[in-house]
Amino acid sequence: MVRYIGVENIRRLIAEIGVEPLLTELAGYLEADFRRWPAFDKAPRYASHSPSGVIELMPASDGEEFAFKYVNGHPKNAGVGLQTVAAFGLLSDVGTGYPLLLSEMTILTALRTAATSALVAKYLARPDSRTMALIGLGAQSEFQALAFRALLGINELRVWDVDPAATNKFQANMAEQGFCIHSASSAADAVLKSDVITTITADKVKATILSDNMVGAGIHLNAVGGDCPGKTELAPRILERGDVFVEFSEQTRVEGEIQQMAPDFPVTEVWRVITGEAAGRTSNDQITIFDSVGFAIEDFSALRYLRDKVTETGYSTELDLIADPKNPRDLFGLLLRPPPLSQVAAHGSEFAS
Amino acid sequence: MVRYIGVENIRRLIAEIGVEPLLTELAGYLEADFRRWPAFDKAPRYASHSPSGVIELMPASDGEEFAFKYVNGHPKNAGVGLQTVAAFGLLSDVGTGYPLLLSEMTILTALRTAATSALVAKYLARPDSRTMALIGLGAQSEFQALAFRALLGINELRVWDVDPAATNKFQANMAEQGFCIHSASSAADAVLKSDVITTITADKVKATILSDNMVGAGIHLNAVGGDCPGKTELAPRILERGDVFVEFSEQTRVEGEIQQMAPDFPVTEVWRVITGEAAGRTSNDQITIFDSVGFAIEDFSALRYLRDKVTETGYSTELDLIADPKNPRDLFGLLLRPPPLSQVAAHGSEFAS
Repeated sequence: MVRYIGVENIRRLIAEIGVEPLLTELAGYLEADFRRWPAFDKAPRYASHSPSGVIELMPASDGEEFAFKYVNGHPKNAGVGLQTVAAFGLLSDVGTGYPLLLSEMTILTALRTAATSALVAKYLARPDSRTMALIGLGAQSEFQALAFRALLGINELRVWDVDPAATNKFQANMAEQGFCIHSASSAADAVLKSDVITTITADKVKATILSDNMVGAGIHLNAVGGDCPGKTELAPRILERGDVFVEFSEQTRVEGEIQQMAPDFPVTEVWRVITGEAAGRTSNDQITIFDSVGFAIEDFSALRYLRDKVTETGYSTELDLIADPKNPRDLFGLLLRPPPLSQVAAHGSEFAS
Repeated sequence: MVRYIGVENIRRLIAEIGVEPLLTELAGYLEADFRRWPAFDKAPRYASHSPSGVIELMPASDGEEFAFKYVNGHPKNAGVGLQTVAAFGLLSDVGTGYPLLLSEMTILTALRTAATSALVAKYLARPDSRTMALIGLGAQSEFQALAFRALLGINELRVWDVDPAATNKFQANMAEQGFCIHSASSAADAVLKSDVITTITADKVKATILSDNMVGAGIHLNAVGGDCPGKTELAPRILERGDVFVEFSEQTRVEGEIQQMAPDFPVTEVWRVITGEAAGRTSNDQITIFDSVGFAIEDFSALRYLRDKVTETGYSTELDLIADPKNPRDLFGLLLRPPPLSQVAAHGSEFAS
């Protein structure tokens, strides 16, 4: 039997742990896996593009466990009431190849993306950062805000979205979270006096959410929205003025902001900053840019965290996903045994954990 | 909600349809998809190799639906009571990227592999074929026998396995299936007077299950067991004497029997035989060889078949695999709503279909 965590159980788990403590714990798992980055079996994700969007498979393995995530990116989904990005994932045992855990990952991806952003900012933003501009108030925005407070203590937000409905949603969700929030009148207004700028817009176009003159000295830029071919948020000149940090350069050169730059544009992989092999921020005036696209190892870390927490809390069920005949060479024998006569089990009892 | 077909429900489905009618219907879906082979988005499977085995992701899309299979190959699993090959798969909608159907695929893979073998043999074996040698009596063997009877009317089997326990298992499972079975004393004895030879052994080594002198004129060779790097069953000379047919040459040159041959060794992709673009068998003396490794489109066909049958029979449940907030940009709002207080739902009722 394979352990299963659906949407209802992940909601229970998050309610029990609390979002900010969870983001902090998850960042610890991410940091541990960034530290052993060279030990992973890595590949750029598999992407199946269509006119309406992309479906991706993101595998990673540390030689003991294997994980992959299925994730889509369909910008027009929101218009028909569906998620732009929906995901699920699996953790399995490399020794036997057997699945261990199947989980929803729409919510888990939002958590791991935010935890990764904040973890990287802990290494790259100025230590005295207190204010963050948040541009793009879609599904990922609240998670980013909470992660930056949990990990960096940032409590002042300057927020902006072209759609007032998104701003209203963000304000309503954050009303009782204790942030000091300035609803900006433009992206330019949002970035004024900010220490960190997070861009997280959804349009699948080469956009200029930030122009060159909007990014001043000393800023840490957390560029999350430009994450697939043809989808960028930053004016190229900003990338030239700052130092660019990426997860896995082979993938980011295709998907990230640096798809706008030459193939040999210099970047630093963040795991090297975390292990101390490479410099992060070296001065207060430097512009640091995390060109984040999301990499499979982060999903691996998130599933590993979830597995450990679920073992503690029991918020999971079981699925009969893998046929398990007594004699493994007797798969056909499974079909000779009479199947359960009624469909009762199909409606619940077989899932008892 | 995502439709889910676990092991118990696929057993119910197969019991209702019957194995041979199911193999015939499934072969129809496979044949339809082979006919439109060029329309598919194809890629060699992603493989994560380890000392104990391999974990693979096999994606395919026809532009309207996307499918992938997770499958392992761990030869030593049988020694610890686990399946050598276990699998599950997913069918999703390209337009939205949303999953439609999650299914066990250990049993389904055995069915689709056998249906593919028999479908290809219908095009390549001599029409008067009546006897099949079956070498390797593991988990796939009974399915192969039933598929060749269902599609080609082959009722005489000459069977061999180095392990008498496997032979006993096969004989017991097939006792009431109405075949005429000769339990051979060796692989050489099994192939005597056979029209078709199916090799389906499990060892992950370069083996010589068939030597050159064992394969006579007019034979159709259904070579299924050599299906990953370092795993072959045939003496190279046999491949030179016959005409070799493959599913997707880019993948087969790495994984199939032809990994033993030069990179430009001539092969014919079977879809071209099925559409009539290429010749299949051209004489009664010709040796035809299907170097089968299994391709993602076959899993696509199998999931498509299963989806249609499940819609008819209702043998499925539902999973809350994808978060579905009323406002798709309000993912965080899902966490603000109080989660269900009790765990009752976790133990069944949320899965009611």
